Amino acid sequence: MVLQDFEKKIFKFIKDYKIFNKYDKILLGVSGGKDSISLLNCMSKLSHIYELELSVAHLNHGMREEAGRDEDFVRQICKKLNVPFFVEKKEVFKYASEKKVGVEVAGRDLRYDFFFRTLKELNYDKIATAHHMDDLAETIIYRIIRGTGIYGLAGMVPLEGVLAKPMLCVSLEEIENYVTINNIPYVEDKYNYSLEYSRNKIRYEISPKMKEINPSFQKSFFRLASTVWEYRDEVEKKFNERVHKTDENSYKIKLENDFFDSEVLRLTFLKFQKYPPNMEETKKVLLMKNKGYRNLKGLKIVKEKDFLIVTKDNNAA
Amino acid sequence: MVLQDFEKKIFKFIKDYKIFNKYDKILLGVSGGKDSISLLNCMSKLSHIYELELSVAHLNHGMREEAGRDEDFVRQICKKLNVPFFVEKKEVFKYASEKKVGVEVAGRDLRYDFFFRTLKELNYDKIATAHHMDDLAETIIYRIIRGTGIYGLAGMVPLEGVLAKPMLCVSLEEIENYVTINNIPYVEDKYNYSLEYSRNKIRYEISPKMKEINPSFQKSFFRLASTVWEYRDEVEKKFNERVHKTDENSYKIKLENDFFDSEVLRLTFLKFQKYPPNMEETKKVLLMKNKGYRNLKGLKIVKEKDFLIVTKDNNAA
Repeated sequence: MVLQDFEKKIFKFIKDYKIFNKYDKILLGVSGGKDSISLLNCMSKLSHIYELELSVAHLNHGMREEAGRDEDFVRQICKKLNVPFFVEKKEVFKYASEKKVGVEVAGRDLRYDFFFRTLKELNYDKIATAHHMDDLAETIIYRIIRGTGIYGLAGMVPLEGVLAKPMLCVSLEEIENYVTINNIPYVEDKYNYSLEYSRNKIRYEISPKMKEINPSFQKSFFRLASTVWEYRDEVEKKFNERVHKTDENSYKIKLENDFFDSEVLRLTFLKFQKYPPNMEETKKVLLMKNKGYRNLKGLKIVKEKDFLIVTKDNNAA
Repeated sequence: MVLQDFEKKIFKFIKDYKIFNKYDKILLGVSGGKDSISLLNCMSKLSHIYELELSVAHLNHGMREEAGRDEDFVRQICKKLNVPFFVEKKEVFKYASEKKVGVEVAGRDLRYDFFFRTLKELNYDKIATAHHMDDLAETIIYRIIRGTGIYGLAGMVPLEGVLAKPMLCVSLEEIENYVTINNIPYVEDKYNYSLEYSRNKIRYEISPKMKEINPSFQKSFFRLASTVWEYRDEVEKKFNERVHKTDENSYKIKLENDFFDSEVLRLTFLKFQKYPPNMEETKKVLLMKNKGYRNLKGLKIVKEKDFLIVTKDNNAA
């Protein structure tokens, strides 16, 4: 099989970051837009090399008459590629107004809910989505503006749990070239979900200005993200070395009085699904004296000699 | 002496980051604008507490008729505050066209050249400039767009060598409030140097859009920078532990096969005043076999067991 540069790039990225293993069963999220159609094409080629098992999940958002056509379009392609096709119809607008969230958030929630249920039903290993380098740059910009430390700066990661993003290494422009050169049909889905205020501003007002300063500014974001991915691996390694789960509601952290103490503490909050404390709060915790304690975001933290005991505080609000 | 919140904030920052020591002799770069006049005011107050010795350096850029008035203005204030005043007149426009650089770069070059000479002549310890939180945010945006790793993401640091930036912790808005509330006179210097293309775009087109997403977006940049400053300290600690200067042109790096190997290697390039290699190049060096070698940016790197020997390659271009 002859591979194109675009495909080679993605396969190298998948290999470098160990995104997929041989024989993995992968559910692809495919809207029918150029991004996800490119994903489907590449993964279909890769599946023969890596002996992967693929299925496609498509959420019919029921928002326009085109939604039915998009569904049919993706179904036809799957038929041609011989990939099982799963579809679910949800009224995204209705859900958004009921839950009082934006249409973009509603669409994402419903899509991932459908993807995760399908993953479980099929007993599959991973969900792959078509997020690309421009999405990565946007997310990093958003994170920085709203506030983040180094760990959160990554924005997106190639593989997190079962969620795989094998196209983070290619830009939207490269995707557009790929579908054009190969005459690959796709549907226009960029108006499917109206972007929320900040995203809109970043995509249409901030990013184009950055492009004027550096035409390949997305690559700068990608390279920065890559160094942060390495940094995250290091923090997680330290976490595994220093933190032990003592029971369902409790972690014991060994303090080493070094740079990583604060990152390890913050990661412990994430393990409890809690937003980590900011730097000032983190420092106060690390500077506590023996037997000192603090309550933070529903967690109780007690200092015992060189250890911090972090426990879910069931009495907290 | 009663301190205002603005001043307290700066003094805490100076203390937290050990920017100045007791009895330090500090040369203040003062253009006469609100930023540097605020710096002069705060440092004058602090000098009594810390027993600092202050002098002011002012570059007369000779670019407009106002330049002479700016010089007189700063001289008068120094007289009132009893701070020695040093001035030098340079034709910035002429220098810029001779050196074929932008006016902004020319102004900066001439200013720092003057500051460093004066520092040496006075036998002073540090040069303090009035860079603030908005400058910090701009620099970080610029760095990210042009490409940087985590280490370079800091943009600016509170103290680097003799260069001190004690006002990084306050925003332009806070400076404006400070001079307004206290009725402090200053000169308008924002048109002194025309900003170069990218800076201009960031200041007037990108930053305002970020402000619309988060009105205190500069604080997000400041907090991110603070975590990067800690990270840099850690990298420098590792550098000091692992790297030994064997002679004038040579460093010996002990490899530990961990996350910091690449940052320590990159920092070694900076010690040679060389721009560090990118990640791909760095990885290739770290993956060399015993006795392997590479030439990079005028440096020769040889692998010897668990060490890298980095030598200035005098034969290189």
